[in-house]
Amino acid sequence: MQNVQFWGETLRLVVEIAATVAFAMSGVMEAARKKLDAVGVCVVGFLAAFGGGTLRDLLLDQRPFFWVRHVEMLWGVLALCLLAMAFMRGRHFAPTAKAIQWPDALGLGLFAATGVHQALLLELPALVAVLMGLITGVFGGVLRDVVCNEIPTAFHDHRPYAVCAFAGGWIYVGLWHMGAPGWLALVACVVVTAGLRGLALWRNWQLPAWRT
Amino acid sequence: MQNVQFWGETLRLVVEIAATVAFAMSGVMEAARKKLDAVGVCVVGFLAAFGGGTLRDLLLDQRPFFWVRHVEMLWGVLALCLLAMAFMRGRHFAPTAKAIQWPDALGLGLFAATGVHQALLLELPALVAVLMGLITGVFGGVLRDVVCNEIPTAFHDHRPYAVCAFAGGWIYVGLWHMGAPGWLALVACVVVTAGLRGLALWRNWQLPAWRT
Amino acid sequence: MQNVQFWGETLRLVVEIAATVAFAMSGVMEAARKKLDAVGVCVVGFLAAFGGGTLRDLLLDQRPFFWVRHVEMLWGVLALCLLAMAFMRGRHFAPTAKAIQWPDALGLGLFAATGVHQALLLELPALVAVLMGLITGVFGGVLRDVVCNEIPTAFHDHRPYAVCAFAGGWIYVGLWHMGAPGWLALVACVVVTAGLRGLALWRNWQLPAWRT
Repeated sequence: MQNVQFWGETLRLVVEIAATVAFAMSGVMEAARKKLDAVGVCVVGFLAAFGGGTLRDLLLDQRPFFWVRHVEMLWGVLALCLLAMAFMRGRHFAPTAKAIQWPDALGLGLFAATGVHQALLLELPALVAVLMGLITGVFGGVLRDVVCNEIPTAFHDHRPYAVCAFAGGWIYVGLWHMGAPGWLALVACVVVTAGLRGLALWRNWQLPAWRT
Repeated sequence: MQNVQFWGETLRLVVEIAATVAFAMSGVMEAARKKLDAVGVCVVGFLAAFGGGTLRDLLLDQRPFFWVRHVEMLWGVLALCLLAMAFMRGRHFAPTAKAIQWPDALGLGLFAATGVHQALLLELPALVAVLMGLITGVFGGVLRDVVCNEIPTAFHDHRPYAVCAFAGGWIYVGLWHMGAPGWLALVACVVVTAGLRGLALWRNWQLPAWRT
Repeated sequence: MQNVQFWGETLRLVVEIAATVAFAMSGVMEAARKKLDAVGVCVVGFLAAFGGGTLRDLLLDQRPFFWVRHVEMLWGVLALCLLAMAFMRGRHFAPTAKAIQWPDALGLGLFAATGVHQALLLELPALVAVLMGLITGVFGGVLRDVVCNEIPTAFHDHRPYAVCAFAGGWIYVGLWHMGAPGWLALVACVVVTAGLRGLALWRNWQLPAWRT
């Protein structure tokens, strides 16, 4: 039993680090495309990696922020941004963007789950909890795109992203209200969110568009 | 007397719902113009409807947010966005934009009044209370425009919008400090704000521009 | 001794007012370039002057905001914006932009120092304190540029700005942890930040760019 918990914790840590790296890299690459300077690359990397969780904590009035409790994550993302500036070149962008799709999908699931989890602990209504999950998963990318003066990708590329987190969030809330154990709700939320996102990428699903 | 209060409450509820619908529709139409997908349409609708009040509560450190206390408003706006996607077409845009000007003006007045009211309850200085009213009424639209990668309409279309809320806010503060009953200050603020906005639309008033 | 403290307080007040004026003017001029109306000019001036400090207080959960405690600063910036609209013309822009570089550099240092100071009082980790200083000094300008639909200057003009505040922040944290008196740490932070910024302007230093 101890062992299971240990492996669970380790697995979660690995997923969390992979997801944060994927989110930060998405910011670094967008900043590079926009020809920002070294400061801009780091700031946009930070916004993409930590923006969603920070907005969640701000809305839920939770302090200290998770990056204050785990300040080593700030150092890690700072190092990642500087290393990317030193070693990454334009020709690495397309393969990197392809490679980070999978940890990014996992991160979407994991971040959404943490948002739903915290909102449920505060006894917020079901829809609010699901929206908190969606905000945690999606708004890092939204802040990244707003600062880079783009319409957020999550809102106009017609591939399901936020809706996966929305669906996964309802799974979490459903299991929670049925009295399922916490780890099961968390795992189910991550699996459903990341699975839907993976299917959407693989089958090239499209969101309904406005019919003018 | 009971009756007066009942009708007052009902009237306020009707105005509030009409205003929220008007604000959400302004977001839905801007999102459609920018060709956002279904997620984008809903998010921009939510930002326009709830952004200003949420920013007010965040700045004043008020929890729970009003949309946590009235979660049925979230469901309503979600349904509104999805219905708009299903039934609204490009040719409906111009008449809708014209029709929502009036509930929008009422909403500006009502939202500004709630902002001033909350700030006065917290005993904040007069100018701060007026600014909180302005932020509540105006920043939903600002967030909508920023996410859609536009300069906020409220800041560059040269028709008085925020200044109406500014004027109405001072009426509220003035009546409050003269010891007038709360409902009178609220009604006066809404009437002055919405009235000035209506006059500005009708007489086509222009704000002073920068003379280069 | 009394005298020294008096002159210290007075000096700080003078620097603070000069810096706030410089920050507000940067907002006013950007709003004018974007042809915003009177409301837009005032809002962007306010965002540039008060945005960074407000974001700091929001993240650190400090209330009341500094502009609630010093409401005369709100009145001052409002008057400044209106006076600029009345008397400033296009031909004043280039000399004003040049003239405000120096109070702006001082303001960057002073605002960064207040951010670091507050974070250290809350016993936050060193890197978080330095980032709070950076956010306080830089994000007023970031909000100004985002609302004006530009990529923030601080992130893409390749002249050191935020990195000066970053360096100055570490000086503050270093002296604080060595037990130096508070005023010394503050002065050192301001001198290092403003000095580096001044050198960067004078010698035309460039930040490393992305090599594609």
